Amino acid sequence: MERLHDLVHRHDPIAVLDLLDDRPAHEVADGLARLEPVDAGWAFRLLDKDRALEVFEELDPVHQQELLAGLRDDAVGALVEEMDPDDRARMLGEAPAKVATRVLAGLSAGERAMTAALLGYPDGSVGRVMTPETVAVPVHSSVTEALAVVRRKGADAETVYTLPVTDAGRRVLGTVSLRDLVLARPDTPVADLVDRAAPRVRAVDDGETAARLMGEANLLALLVVDSEDRLLGLLTIDDAVEILEAADTEDAARQSGAAPWSGHYMYVKVTRLARTRALWLAVLLLAAVLTVNVLQIFEDSLEQVTALALFIPLLVGTGGNAGAQAASAAVRAIAVGEVRLADLPAVVWRELRVGLLLGTLLGGLGLVVASALVGVQIATVVAVTLVAICGWAATVGATMPLLARRLGIDPAVVSAPMVTTLVDATGLLIYFSVARLLLGV
Amino acid sequence: MERLHDLVHRHDPIAVLDLLDDRPAHEVADGLARLEPVDAGWAFRLLDKDRALEVFEELDPVHQQELLAGLRDDAVGALVEEMDPDDRARMLGEAPAKVATRVLAGLSAGERAMTAALLGYPDGSVGRVMTPETVAVPVHSSVTEALAVVRRKGADAETVYTLPVTDAGRRVLGTVSLRDLVLARPDTPVADLVDRAAPRVRAVDDGETAARLMGEANLLALLVVDSEDRLLGLLTIDDAVEILEAADTEDAARQSGAAPWSGHYMYVKVTRLARTRALWLAVLLLAAVLTVNVLQIFEDSLEQVTALALFIPLLVGTGGNAGAQAASAAVRAIAVGEVRLADLPAVVWRELRVGLLLGTLLGGLGLVVASALVGVQIATVVAVTLVAICGWAATVGATMPLLARRLGIDPAVVSAPMVTTLVDATGLLIYFSVARLLLGV
Repeated sequence: MERLHDLVHRHDPIAVLDLLDDRPAHEVADGLARLEPVDAGWAFRLLDKDRALEVFEELDPVHQQELLAGLRDDAVGALVEEMDPDDRARMLGEAPAKVATRVLAGLSAGERAMTAALLGYPDGSVGRVMTPETVAVPVHSSVTEALAVVRRKGADAETVYTLPVTDAGRRVLGTVSLRDLVLARPDTPVADLVDRAAPRVRAVDDGETAARLMGEANLLALLVVDSEDRLLGLLTIDDAVEILEAADTEDAARQSGAAPWSGHYMYVKVTRLARTRALWLAVLLLAAVLTVNVLQIFEDSLEQVTALALFIPLLVGTGGNAGAQAASAAVRAIAVGEVRLADLPAVVWRELRVGLLLGTLLGGLGLVVASALVGVQIATVVAVTLVAICGWAATVGATMPLLARRLGIDPAVVSAPMVTTLVDATGLLIYFSVARLLLGV
Repeated sequence: MERLHDLVHRHDPIAVLDLLDDRPAHEVADGLARLEPVDAGWAFRLLDKDRALEVFEELDPVHQQELLAGLRDDAVGALVEEMDPDDRARMLGEAPAKVATRVLAGLSAGERAMTAALLGYPDGSVGRVMTPETVAVPVHSSVTEALAVVRRKGADAETVYTLPVTDAGRRVLGTVSLRDLVLARPDTPVADLVDRAAPRVRAVDDGETAARLMGEANLLALLVVDSEDRLLGLLTIDDAVEILEAADTEDAARQSGAAPWSGHYMYVKVTRLARTRALWLAVLLLAAVLTVNVLQIFEDSLEQVTALALFIPLLVGTGGNAGAQAASAAVRAIAVGEVRLADLPAVVWRELRVGLLLGTLLGGLGLVVASALVGVQIATVVAVTLVAICGWAATVGATMPLLARRLGIDPAVVSAPMVTTLVDATGLLIYFSVARLLLGV
């Protein structure tokens, strides 16, 4: 793909097509995304219709819009008309309203109605990413009849492996798998094969929760219904995987104290990147003023024993690290459902012990190192502080995400920087209290 | 599921079965995992054979072994014999060698051979998690013949939706989907339907890379072949999702400076949790001794202007936060393939600008706050330091994961704590250099 850039610049269509022809669509999409919009548009227009659609669906919304901007209206219409309704909704959901309206207007009535319906669901909901093009099988059919339905309607559907089974009122009774249909005797009633316990979600439900449910229950597709249990669509596993990846990316960003953003790291504007990080940095800076206040309280001790200042970064750093480890473990355990609110006391007790264990280890290490540097007196203060700080930091770090959850806040916003900043101020309190106690300063 | 505990303690089999009957297998598994081993064993033995297998496959390896320990040998044999080979291999891979040997000995020859083959592949490889039970379709068959093969062999296979197509020498030519077979005319040659560009991986390849490939290429199953392109098995999407989730959990742990561990947060021993965190904490503590050394260099300045000490935690904290944000963004961008080694100069340039932007913002904020607390002179030092530290920290934070990758180390080990500790020492250098320059101390 590195050669794509050169070939495009030489405007050599045959060599470009040669290079792109035997690559999977997602690689071609990645190659195009790394070109300037004008060049990407030129290369994209070389692809034949089916191939262009495949590649287009693999692009992220930003690049999809750039490409569309460079196409004539009829080409835009032809391309978007052929997209899967859920992919189309995702693209239009991120497009400026003016673009979305123009593209929607160019669609056939049927596709437009389907897309508008998806766009009506809230951002992040199942409805936004489900496919409405399903093959529903009437419960009172035989296997032969059901397979005939699949053959008749299957070409347009995103999946035919999980088939919703409905009654006369389009109410969902469960699912039947194409596997069971193919393996069963032709005259078997579908009613005998229905998985009536198949989980279902509402279109307004949270997409991430639904995606995790699919992972746990090993589903290829999940039923999406309305409030009266009527079929609206299916959430397919490829979309669920994308949701989970995006959610984990968001959690990773939040964990470092940055707001999540959508889009490609290399193509996001620098000012946009800065904005995702600025708020938390500023909040944390203001919170860190607390550390200045704490130190001001102990300014006398500091003037008497300047050597105490030498260990401030080491101690608050270690406390922050221990707290961040615990917070990260707790956030992840909550995200994957291993820890619930009711586990709070058990978590506190676990982490307190983990923290004190680690503190004892580090205290021993600190005693040796600090004795060599500044003598045994201050080293003792450092060692005792390490034990206390580690126990305290691990407990606070693991508790905060659970408290956030109890307050209805996403636990992932309890970032390492947030824990660190909180533990910094309290850690200094511990340090100088220990110093006063042991050194009498 | 909260009631399960009470019902089991009352030893009320009918009420327990009543409660468990209409729950999905993964919920039952989670309920059992939260009981004491003895109670879980009692409740598990109440389940009928098929249900027991379903639930058992949803348990994590630790609880699987606990349950097996409480079953008679013939019951163990019956249960494990029915497991999917890849699930069985995963369980035995984490079991003590003695247990694994005993369980393997109880299997039928065919299942034993299949499991032993999977266990022969390295931990974390595709071979460990692939399913060897596939339905291969000869390329010279018609659709009707292919469907007959599916009906004959499909019951034992983990998936029949992606069918490997092979030539006479069991060499893989590509895949055909059950969808295409069902939708095609019965006399169509399979050769016309084969997707010859279907990606394939080797059994010794890295499992996470293969799983990400499946996500990008939207595959339900991925071909696994040997060095001569002969079919070994398929990696299915449910296993790929599990691999990705586990990988993201590992990355989250590493990002906070803890070693990844397998198993459930609430059931892992406290000493084991402590061990996952101890090494990095100790290493970082020793690295933090550098901050003590730096401060010792400037001890004179500190004695002259004790007020400088007040801002040490705030400044190193802010630098650490800015660095952690950048590192986290870079680690994630590398993990999902948005950033490559060749992008290093571009990344440095991006992050330097982001950091200086943020530093200017925070410097302004710091100037106001610090002026109010300690006067404008030291406040100026603090503000200038904030600009420099943020630019430096963001650059270092984003560069380190890329350098790790260049050195062949997993970028995710570049944790927030690691960046923080590195930035701490250099940040202090910046701070006191600025102070000497501006205050002449």
